[in-house]
Amino acid sequence: MNAETFKQIFTSEDSTDKENIDNVLSIIEDVKQNKDEALKKYTAQFDGRELDNFKVPVEKLKNSFDNLSEEEKNALVLIKKRIADYQQSIKYKDFEDREFSYVYHPLERIGIYIPGGTALYPSSVLMSAVPAAVAGVENIVAVTPTFDDENITFAALYIADVTEVYTVGGAQAVAALAYGTETIAKVDKIVGPGNRYVALAKKQVFGDVGIDMIAGPSEILLYVDNSADYTAVAYDIFAQAEHDVNARTFLMAESQDVIDGIQLEVDRLIDSQRRADVIQKSLENNHYQIIDNRKELIDVINFIAPEHVSIQHRDEQEISRDIRYAGAVFIGKYSPEAIGDYAAGPSHVLPTNQTGRFSHGLNVNDFLTSHAVINLKEGTYSNIAGAAKTIAKKEGLDAHYESLNIRMEQ
Amino acid sequence: MNAETFKQIFTSEDSTDKENIDNVLSIIEDVKQNKDEALKKYTAQFDGRELDNFKVPVEKLKNSFDNLSEEEKNALVLIKKRIADYQQSIKYKDFEDREFSYVYHPLERIGIYIPGGTALYPSSVLMSAVPAAVAGVENIVAVTPTFDDENITFAALYIADVTEVYTVGGAQAVAALAYGTETIAKVDKIVGPGNRYVALAKKQVFGDVGIDMIAGPSEILLYVDNSADYTAVAYDIFAQAEHDVNARTFLMAESQDVIDGIQLEVDRLIDSQRRADVIQKSLENNHYQIIDNRKELIDVINFIAPEHVSIQHRDEQEISRDIRYAGAVFIGKYSPEAIGDYAAGPSHVLPTNQTGRFSHGLNVNDFLTSHAVINLKEGTYSNIAGAAKTIAKKEGLDAHYESLNIRMEQ
Repeated sequence: MNAETFKQIFTSEDSTDKENIDNVLSIIEDVKQNKDEALKKYTAQFDGRELDNFKVPVEKLKNSFDNLSEEEKNALVLIKKRIADYQQSIKYKDFEDREFSYVYHPLERIGIYIPGGTALYPSSVLMSAVPAAVAGVENIVAVTPTFDDENITFAALYIADVTEVYTVGGAQAVAALAYGTETIAKVDKIVGPGNRYVALAKKQVFGDVGIDMIAGPSEILLYVDNSADYTAVAYDIFAQAEHDVNARTFLMAESQDVIDGIQLEVDRLIDSQRRADVIQKSLENNHYQIIDNRKELIDVINFIAPEHVSIQHRDEQEISRDIRYAGAVFIGKYSPEAIGDYAAGPSHVLPTNQTGRFSHGLNVNDFLTSHAVINLKEGTYSNIAGAAKTIAKKEGLDAHYESLNIRMEQ
Repeated sequence: MNAETFKQIFTSEDSTDKENIDNVLSIIEDVKQNKDEALKKYTAQFDGRELDNFKVPVEKLKNSFDNLSEEEKNALVLIKKRIADYQQSIKYKDFEDREFSYVYHPLERIGIYIPGGTALYPSSVLMSAVPAAVAGVENIVAVTPTFDDENITFAALYIADVTEVYTVGGAQAVAALAYGTETIAKVDKIVGPGNRYVALAKKQVFGDVGIDMIAGPSEILLYVDNSADYTAVAYDIFAQAEHDVNARTFLMAESQDVIDGIQLEVDRLIDSQRRADVIQKSLENNHYQIIDNRKELIDVINFIAPEHVSIQHRDEQEISRDIRYAGAVFIGKYSPEAIGDYAAGPSHVLPTNQTGRFSHGLNVNDFLTSHAVINLKEGTYSNIAGAAKTIAKKEGLDAHYESLNIRMEQ
């Protein structure tokens, strides 16, 4: 589904769209009313699976990990540590002042949606669950529509300190997390990408629980000059394009020569790629080459706010400082986007489709909530209560005025 | 509208609710298609006002300020400074490390919804707009359905550095901010409370723009012992209750004596309140007295996550440290909630209806967006790329593998 189609779901007058919203609202209401029974019904209807028990036993998760090769186990453990170390370094700390503090607390219970489909992405499990664990969330619940057998995604759930896993998906799983059933307790926030029904459901339950973002197709913008390794850049383009025919690449340079040099490498290598058909289609429909001067290119980046920006350019530090809006910025030869997908540290759950202009990649702080603590001394109070009384009177809130005034009289 | 009614809008199967959603979707689509013409149509239809020009001239804002009394002017200026100083103190700063940084930038353009109705709340304007200005947002746009004449809300908009004001409201105003019209340019994020249509519209445009939260009726929880001034506490209760018949108060104590003492003051003073009818109704329907031991009371607070918690108790510091979930916490005699409404500093735009369990009061950082900058050195890359390659291979993403591998060979 491309970004425009996705937007249409929410805003078009077309009856199908309203039908989708109505369907999702009906599913949500049914799950609120009939709980586990409704979950069973929709799992049979949409996923074609008869389930008696949604909960995955912890032994199955553990076995999934135990059955991995040593190399795979070590890779998951190393990646978990990289993510945890980075998230710890950016975790917000309480702010304390004489008359104010601003304090953070972990959410009590969160839900992670893990999409089904053919591909298993253990990296996405770690990138969502580890930040929650670092935040200190005690109850980390995962829902996923399709897994039965032991697999590396279960292994990742196991080492990521996920406390409960349920094999349900779709809008019904979102409703179960938002309102609770006999089996699944209500959570405080739901994160993770899903299909259009999952996205619609997350939107409708927002306010009753927190949600993270609405995910669209993946994007990369590569900003390159002739100091870059064109072969490596070609592989970066393929890595983006192999995700999905709707995945977008933007290749930017300040001269045609650079674009031509990379295109040669793309043409030379594309047929030998295992997912050449997906890559070919993705590049045909969603590959953009942009040549312009530095200032214009920076403006375009800030307008697009690309999910990933990769700068392989002799002025890479300078260029990166001018970027205001992006999901994440990767600088230099040894920070290809692919290392960010797995092991650099920051979560690869990033804003797409211009949403980087107002939102950020999932991180530890999204699993904290915060509040101000106000503890004024008498002297400060005396200095400001008069102004407050003046405006309270003007607003016609007399009891506010009295509540302020009585503390000045004494 | 009480919290339960509000929730029903989004989740019930009742046809009226779907009708509301459908209506809002139709308004949004109409504004996307017909822009200013649609705004004029709905303003005539819903607000009964024929508008040719939505934009309030800056002279009208300035005159509104100039025509205030000196006392009112000084009050607004002092309050603005208090808010700005506090917000500056909690503003996030860039995090820089050797191979990572995490950087913040102000949003480019934001919209503030200012509800209409009979009451004018200049304090709400300052509490929303000043945090945005402190964040460094260059374009701060306000929309409001009902004002024509000079007034103190315009004065507040003037001194709060709001750059544009439009007299449109409802779902149509939200759509205009989200998608732009000939007159109103698209914003990146919409904040501020409104009626049910505004709330529904904000939800439906979420993802295309950022939004803040879904606001419900106001709440206060007072945690009191016999060291408190019972008369002052009675006024605090009245101050909450005078907002609205749906405003909720929770009065908590560890003994019946305290509750009885405060009740005596409430009974003695209630008839002399100017808004006694609203206060009476609000207390009848939405006033709860809870007596229990300390541990249970703290658990109740964390479950309710009240918009405001006021602790007037000899162990107030200790109690406040156990509170994990709240909109804001006020400690002691000189921090009544009413001072927070106006002049303490933190925004009074706070999460209600349990949403403090996953969200926080509006602040400067809600007008920033952020991203990670990843700049790995060769040595770090060599240490982690192997693990990344292992998982890329397992996920079947061969071009990711190659993009990682080519940087190890050289």
